[in-house]
Amino acid sequence: MRHKLLILSPDRDKYRALIEEARLVDLEFADDSASDVDIVLGEPKPTFAALDSLPALGWLQSIWAGVEPFLDPASRRDYILTSVRGVFGGLISEYVIGYLLAHERKIFQRLEAQKNKTWEDSDTGTLRGKTIGLLGVGSIGAEIAEAAKFFGMTVRGYTMGSETSKHVDKYFHPLDSDSSPSKQQQAAALQSFASELDYLVSVLPNTMATRKIVGADLLNALPSHALFINVGRGQAVDESALIEALNQNKIAGAVLDVFEQEPLPAEHPFWTTPNLLMTFHTAGPSFAEDIAKIFIENYRLFVEGKPLKYRVDFERGY
Amino acid sequence: MRHKLLILSPDRDKYRALIEEARLVDLEFADDSASDVDIVLGEPKPTFAALDSLPALGWLQSIWAGVEPFLDPASRRDYILTSVRGVFGGLISEYVIGYLLAHERKIFQRLEAQKNKTWEDSDTGTLRGKTIGLLGVGSIGAEIAEAAKFFGMTVRGYTMGSETSKHVDKYFHPLDSDSSPSKQQQAAALQSFASELDYLVSVLPNTMATRKIVGADLLNALPSHALFINVGRGQAVDESALIEALNQNKIAGAVLDVFEQEPLPAEHPFWTTPNLLMTFHTAGPSFAEDIAKIFIENYRLFVEGKPLKYRVDFERGY
Repeated sequence: MRHKLLILSPDRDKYRALIEEARLVDLEFADDSASDVDIVLGEPKPTFAALDSLPALGWLQSIWAGVEPFLDPASRRDYILTSVRGVFGGLISEYVIGYLLAHERKIFQRLEAQKNKTWEDSDTGTLRGKTIGLLGVGSIGAEIAEAAKFFGMTVRGYTMGSETSKHVDKYFHPLDSDSSPSKQQQAAALQSFASELDYLVSVLPNTMATRKIVGADLLNALPSHALFINVGRGQAVDESALIEALNQNKIAGAVLDVFEQEPLPAEHPFWTTPNLLMTFHTAGPSFAEDIAKIFIENYRLFVEGKPLKYRVDFERGY
Repeated sequence: MRHKLLILSPDRDKYRALIEEARLVDLEFADDSASDVDIVLGEPKPTFAALDSLPALGWLQSIWAGVEPFLDPASRRDYILTSVRGVFGGLISEYVIGYLLAHERKIFQRLEAQKNKTWEDSDTGTLRGKTIGLLGVGSIGAEIAEAAKFFGMTVRGYTMGSETSKHVDKYFHPLDSDSSPSKQQQAAALQSFASELDYLVSVLPNTMATRKIVGADLLNALPSHALFINVGRGQAVDESALIEALNQNKIAGAVLDVFEQEPLPAEHPFWTTPNLLMTFHTAGPSFAEDIAKIFIENYRLFVEGKPLKYRVDFERGY
């Protein structure tokens, strides 16, 4: 059986060249949405827009880790959806360690001193001995945990129950049984997780269970010298509560890569909130080489009728 | 035999408390330079000033890694001089990785974009796959090498001959025999070491052999996208050559923690040289706890008449 692949990405030519190199059997490239396209490699936005014009779609390989648009219960679910994993962990871990070091080693303050021609040799801090708390310890969280241990940090992990990373020193869970946790159970577990943290890092996806989990209660439970970093999804944060916490110096600062609405609207208060640094959903850039490798591996499994890697469960949401 | 210890540091009370906790035998504390002081724990400057008023000095434990003032052949050498090692490696490695990540992940550009309220989501780089070259691979260089490997970098090391770190992928030496290298041999080895580097990091001490080793030839041998970082000593750099390389965009940038003259004079061109970031001899802060631990260990060896750790050879200079 022949397969027809449509690539929906500004890097289409790059992806095509990388895939052609692998000389996959029975694979043709389509130039645009056609009734016989059965495989798509694409970025969520253009792919979601094309979804209804692809009647033969059997498998969609997303170029991004976030596949939220496809999870809407009103959308079709008659195809295999695969995400990408394992490629962002190292990059996001670089991002987190980079901002942790910028904070400890006063990288921005030193630049100010240089601009003022001031020999500013006040002591700096170190990551060694500090405590980092990871909200969510999946494949990305586990890589952050490993890097944090490399620098001599203590690592706490908050998960719904799984304890898969050996680099987490102490796990916190909302429940002891396998039933759904109550709001109080979750609040108590978060409270105990947040106390004594120097750094809180959210790696949480956007699901019903994670929405606004970083709210006033969790932020108030953090020590006032703590820094919050969000490399997961903006929906996990109560943005008003974070602005209030920063305005009132309840925490020392925040570094945000993701937001409820992206791009961040021009009138959003985040642009000028004190002690808030932002980046622009750039913590985990997609490198075509990494994604093409996953596609090629999954294509081989697909033609053999085997289970694909990183398949997304539409109900669970990841 | 009783010993009398003089502590010459603004952190004197902190050191005294840390040392008292260890309940060392036969140790008294002196309040100021006295004829019976036989041990000094001190920072180089006040200690060097006090040197001639300490006739009974038998052992000086420096609080800093740099012990240059004491190496002057005109100064007395009738005592044991010990330096501190093993405590700065982790801190300096944090500093180097911090600035590498700031460069790759565009930490300063993102801050500018935020100030301009611009959603600037251009791709960033990664340390993975980049090549770092270490000028000098002693205990500090070895820790930088280990951190670089952790982030997936290729590590080159330039040394006078020793190959002690297993984290260096390829070593470069100025000579094949154990004779003194000629200027040409050294230049050729440096040239070959510098080619293809993304990052050049000097960890070199200030000795006759290292003076101005980072000069026009070495800087010209670097790729134009390379970044130079100096966490060793300022004397290893030809400052005029570096300013010229930066002004002419022969390299992408420099991060300097050390300078020929410190504090850097107000009129020095470095303050405003393009693509130059500076810090203020703050890459490897001394933490009293670490230094006190070394002193305590060495004191126990001293009273037992055993060889002390990190003893400096006055002739060799380290």
